[in-house]
Amino acid sequence: MIRAGIVGATGYAGAELVRILSRHPGVEIVFLGSRGFAGQRFSDIYGNMRGIEDGICEDDGDPSFIGELADKADVIFTATPQGVCATLVNDEVLQKTRIIDLSADFRIKDVSIYEKWYGIRHAAPGYIDEAVYGLCEINRKKVRDARIVANPGCYTTCSILTAYPLVKAGLIDPSTLIVDAKSGTSGAGRGAKVANLFCEVNESIKPYGVATHRHTPEIEEQLGYACGRNITISFTPHLVPMDRGILATEYASLVKKPDGSLPSAEEIREAYEDAFGSEHFIRLLGDGAVPETRWVKDTNYTDIGFKIDERTGRIVMMGALDNIVKGAAGQAVQNMNIMFGFDEAMSL
Amino acid sequence: MIRAGIVGATGYAGAELVRILSRHPGVEIVFLGSRGFAGQRFSDIYGNMRGIEDGICEDDGDPSFIGELADKADVIFTATPQGVCATLVNDEVLQKTRIIDLSADFRIKDVSIYEKWYGIRHAAPGYIDEAVYGLCEINRKKVRDARIVANPGCYTTCSILTAYPLVKAGLIDPSTLIVDAKSGTSGAGRGAKVANLFCEVNESIKPYGVATHRHTPEIEEQLGYACGRNITISFTPHLVPMDRGILATEYASLVKKPDGSLPSAEEIREAYEDAFGSEHFIRLLGDGAVPETRWVKDTNYTDIGFKIDERTGRIVMMGALDNIVKGAAGQAVQNMNIMFGFDEAMSL
Amino acid sequence: MIRAGIVGATGYAGAELVRILSRHPGVEIVFLGSRGFAGQRFSDIYGNMRGIEDGICEDDGDPSFIGELADKADVIFTATPQGVCATLVNDEVLQKTRIIDLSADFRIKDVSIYEKWYGIRHAAPGYIDEAVYGLCEINRKKVRDARIVANPGCYTTCSILTAYPLVKAGLIDPSTLIVDAKSGTSGAGRGAKVANLFCEVNESIKPYGVATHRHTPEIEEQLGYACGRNITISFTPHLVPMDRGILATEYASLVKKPDGSLPSAEEIREAYEDAFGSEHFIRLLGDGAVPETRWVKDTNYTDIGFKIDERTGRIVMMGALDNIVKGAAGQAVQNMNIMFGFDEAMSL
Amino acid sequence: MIRAGIVGATGYAGAELVRILSRHPGVEIVFLGSRGFAGQRFSDIYGNMRGIEDGICEDDGDPSFIGELADKADVIFTATPQGVCATLVNDEVLQKTRIIDLSADFRIKDVSIYEKWYGIRHAAPGYIDEAVYGLCEINRKKVRDARIVANPGCYTTCSILTAYPLVKAGLIDPSTLIVDAKSGTSGAGRGAKVANLFCEVNESIKPYGVATHRHTPEIEEQLGYACGRNITISFTPHLVPMDRGILATEYASLVKKPDGSLPSAEEIREAYEDAFGSEHFIRLLGDGAVPETRWVKDTNYTDIGFKIDERTGRIVMMGALDNIVKGAAGQAVQNMNIMFGFDEAMSL
Repeated sequence: MIRAGIVGATGYAGAELVRILSRHPGVEIVFLGSRGFAGQRFSDIYGNMRGIEDGICEDDGDPSFIGELADKADVIFTATPQGVCATLVNDEVLQKTRIIDLSADFRIKDVSIYEKWYGIRHAAPGYIDEAVYGLCEINRKKVRDARIVANPGCYTTCSILTAYPLVKAGLIDPSTLIVDAKSGTSGAGRGAKVANLFCEVNESIKPYGVATHRHTPEIEEQLGYACGRNITISFTPHLVPMDRGILATEYASLVKKPDGSLPSAEEIREAYEDAFGSEHFIRLLGDGAVPETRWVKDTNYTDIGFKIDERTGRIVMMGALDNIVKGAAGQAVQNMNIMFGFDEAMSL
Repeated sequence: MIRAGIVGATGYAGAELVRILSRHPGVEIVFLGSRGFAGQRFSDIYGNMRGIEDGICEDDGDPSFIGELADKADVIFTATPQGVCATLVNDEVLQKTRIIDLSADFRIKDVSIYEKWYGIRHAAPGYIDEAVYGLCEINRKKVRDARIVANPGCYTTCSILTAYPLVKAGLIDPSTLIVDAKSGTSGAGRGAKVANLFCEVNESIKPYGVATHRHTPEIEEQLGYACGRNITISFTPHLVPMDRGILATEYASLVKKPDGSLPSAEEIREAYEDAFGSEHFIRLLGDGAVPETRWVKDTNYTDIGFKIDERTGRIVMMGALDNIVKGAAGQAVQNMNIMFGFDEAMSL
Repeated sequence: MIRAGIVGATGYAGAELVRILSRHPGVEIVFLGSRGFAGQRFSDIYGNMRGIEDGICEDDGDPSFIGELADKADVIFTATPQGVCATLVNDEVLQKTRIIDLSADFRIKDVSIYEKWYGIRHAAPGYIDEAVYGLCEINRKKVRDARIVANPGCYTTCSILTAYPLVKAGLIDPSTLIVDAKSGTSGAGRGAKVANLFCEVNESIKPYGVATHRHTPEIEEQLGYACGRNITISFTPHLVPMDRGILATEYASLVKKPDGSLPSAEEIREAYEDAFGSEHFIRLLGDGAVPETRWVKDTNYTDIGFKIDERTGRIVMMGALDNIVKGAAGQAVQNMNIMFGFDEAMSL
Repeated sequence: MIRAGIVGATGYAGAELVRILSRHPGVEIVFLGSRGFAGQRFSDIYGNMRGIEDGICEDDGDPSFIGELADKADVIFTATPQGVCATLVNDEVLQKTRIIDLSADFRIKDVSIYEKWYGIRHAAPGYIDEAVYGLCEINRKKVRDARIVANPGCYTTCSILTAYPLVKAGLIDPSTLIVDAKSGTSGAGRGAKVANLFCEVNESIKPYGVATHRHTPEIEEQLGYACGRNITISFTPHLVPMDRGILATEYASLVKKPDGSLPSAEEIREAYEDAFGSEHFIRLLGDGAVPETRWVKDTNYTDIGFKIDERTGRIVMMGALDNIVKGAAGQAVQNMNIMFGFDEAMSL
């Protein structure tokens, strides 16, 4: 039985962590942190947890809580705004506990890129190097022994997994990659903003952060590792009137074979199988099949399909996941399971 | 006062025609055709029209009604499945009345392309040539005297208008054009299909018709006219859990200037202004502004924005309209207004 | 041409006023008041109004604006939180202009009841007496010459109109009246509250304000006038995951006739016809027919149906309207049309 | 390990049974029956089950399958239209297996009432007597040994549980009971009907089956047992634009005490505690707290709150559950757990 602390437990990702961990047979939750709801019963904020997790939220607004928490927790999840986790990490803490950060603080290796896209100064750049990018299907081995796991972003997990096998196999030209992504509204968080009111989101779809969204460099960095060089992509997120789910529709030119022909659907399928065929949480739908976010809702699965367009020489790759589960809390628990030797799918 | 007949009045586009025409001061509705609801009061099917249009629907399942209808109607709208309008058109009918077809029967000039993408034999290919493609902002002059107006598709209207000015001005490379489109569910029609049930559509987003959707050749043909050569594009529609609205997010590589630089936002803006600056129903949002479908809901407007991505050398063009209004019934009435000398925006 | 000022123009009701009045041929909007958006273009906040109402919002946070506004406006709409309108009303203002208040300040004749249910002190009790309760179908004649019109609440309009004819005709026992009402989320306003975020409202229904909702005494007062005595009702509002619409399902015991039989459906129908048969904005659906909010969406209609339950001796009365139109802005314009001699349905 | 067969596995309730049973450690699914999808992979119809339940659906359209199924299954769930289960039940079948019927065939003890409200002739009235009404919290002991369990309806479970303790304790007058219920759209089933299309349901709320809904006599029978006499209630269901959930808002007059005072909130609370205080799947929210369907979504819980209205002498009782889980498949598994000696909450 390990003890887990959750910083930022009352946001959407934090609350999903509570929900998943509360049914995990190997985990005891020892800390429910919250800035806005300190002193309140967790189940008074999230009524679904009545009778399941009735603990009281503790104030995590001031970083001073981290010392005590590090003493009693084997693992700390930080489901916090950008910049917070970096202020909590130090040698003393890391000697006592391990951290799974759901924010972007330790995802990007080049701190200048982080600071440029996020517009904040990194408070603990010295720990970026050792942090492991927690995309389980790709970095599983490194995750095992990590002290800091940088849990990937929701758009990023979906965008990377969907294209990764073809980038790695050299079947598509990464410089032509365009990711058109659609997200449910929980991705915008639980802050009280007019733009996220029901009547503002319902019955509408809109793009946002066009050519400037912060998940862009994260996708570029990871897919760059897959092909061994720096790449630049187009990424456009959209807000969809639904609670959960991300769909990434990705376009790229197929790399022609020496004889001028395009890769076959069979070759594409094989590349996906080679990369992910034995992955529990990736379901390959095959040629022509399209993922739908409803089928991955409330699960840790990523569903991936593709379609070759002979007329244009492009392929359309499509991936779907639940932004709060595989895109946040579920993947965080998957990482925890790997780190602590549990079955990787436990309680997911 | 002109007399209008509506074939297929009880589908979503037909019903919107009824709604718009019933408040048009220059139009009297003389025929409400329906296959499934013949003999029923229109307002018993569409309760919003109680007290406004309580006429009885007449059977339009057998084409024999067309002779009598041609005698009494100055204009006939066909809001019918593919292939129906082509069976109604003949010399006798066209000598007595004019037709605005909301289906695809007369949109595509090359009948072999029509027959390939739609999988049906065209019943009246001899009239394709004279039919005018009713994209008002582009073909206004030809519409005026047309006997047959081929009212554009919903995806098509949005996709074409959004890219047309830049294709025409040579600012983007049409061979790189990718249209990622998202539509509300009314676009799927009012047929009783499991796939369109509330519980199947709600809380999900999915792509469909990937690389095979029938609106593709229509977009290619019209944008081909804009640049004077055949083009091939990628087009992917998506189903969004909302009633109304289409958003087209379009990607293309900008054509570099002789000095290697990209066109400026100002140059892009000017190309849009040149093409559509004086159009009543097109609202140019300018550089960096994004359209949202809620702002065009229940209106005949198309909102267009764009964003240059210096990193990739691409531009993201974004357009939004209401698929049932500007994408169907509204544009049909706009065409009617042009054909009969009404103010183009009357009752819209 | 009359000149209208709108205080609180950027809330949902205010914005609907702007939308309706901007197409009214007899009205010029001379003031767009806003606390949060002063200095901004109205159409930058409500994108649907781009090209239609591009005026700049003026600060209405400090009541000092009222003097100047009274000079230039023939009518002032106050779409403001409770208590604001009462601070704006005085003799000088009322000598120059007329006020249609969309808040509750002048709806309840007994100031102690107002102060009890709303928990605030009334700033101008001296004007309550002359204020006319603007339920057009019932108080049309008094509205004509009113200086202050108290525009009814959304729940109230629906609840009262649905039961009024039967209460007045003595066909139901008012002491048994139970109103179970369901509202779209726009009724909760445009304030940035967590409870109204998309992900909090979507996919759920909940009651609120059970036995304590402020619209209760307003319904009781008006229905009390109908039967000539004080009555007490049960009223329970619910929040429904949709933008617009109120449905009131109302239960009451039918008053038996001397022979012990229940009133017939025909007698019920007649009572409704007597009261509302000639009303433009009330549609009587008749025995067994049920209203649906979608049919009144974006309109000023109230649809009313009923069903006698012989087994229980009760009647179920059902009414539906659009909470922002007939329940707020539309009825306000209907009142304005009456006050200024326009056709009552103009621009509605 | 017991073997379970599911007749009607591809409807919404059937599919939820598959989902719940597929993770039940003590159950093996041996039969997936379907009329419309026989021969297809279950996970091709419900994509969420890819990799989890990929079995092939077998034809259950002709009752002849039941003999073979009875041989191999320890329990058979019938998630079928009214009347089907009654045609499957006979002595031979019941000697080999046990049946949990999710339809209404065996819920109502008086066959004439069943035949009147359902409008069909009962095919096996001889088995009604022995069938146990499977409302676990009330009939747990009888369920244990039942051969036929009549799994309660969704509206019924919610309506009964919410009022049962107060009816039983004599705190409310059952003849004044009014149940105003609201349901998500999955309750309407997966049949291809225009009325259940996304665009017909979305953005609207409507009552239906007013004073005639088939769940009425079921509620009356069970609450009649609670108070020991026949009762007649008002029941009005409404369709809400959401997938899952039922909310029942119930009104009744409180029975005054000898001194003329109303029961206190504390007395009400105690009655609820006495009846359900130790129930795992009932959460009593207490005085003034309101249930919301989102908190019981995808769970087997029923949340119950109440509010005394001193002004009217009535109480408002409010209950919420997930119509497909506690209102159908979840309760069926809860019954199975009781029948076969599993922990009652297993896999729920």
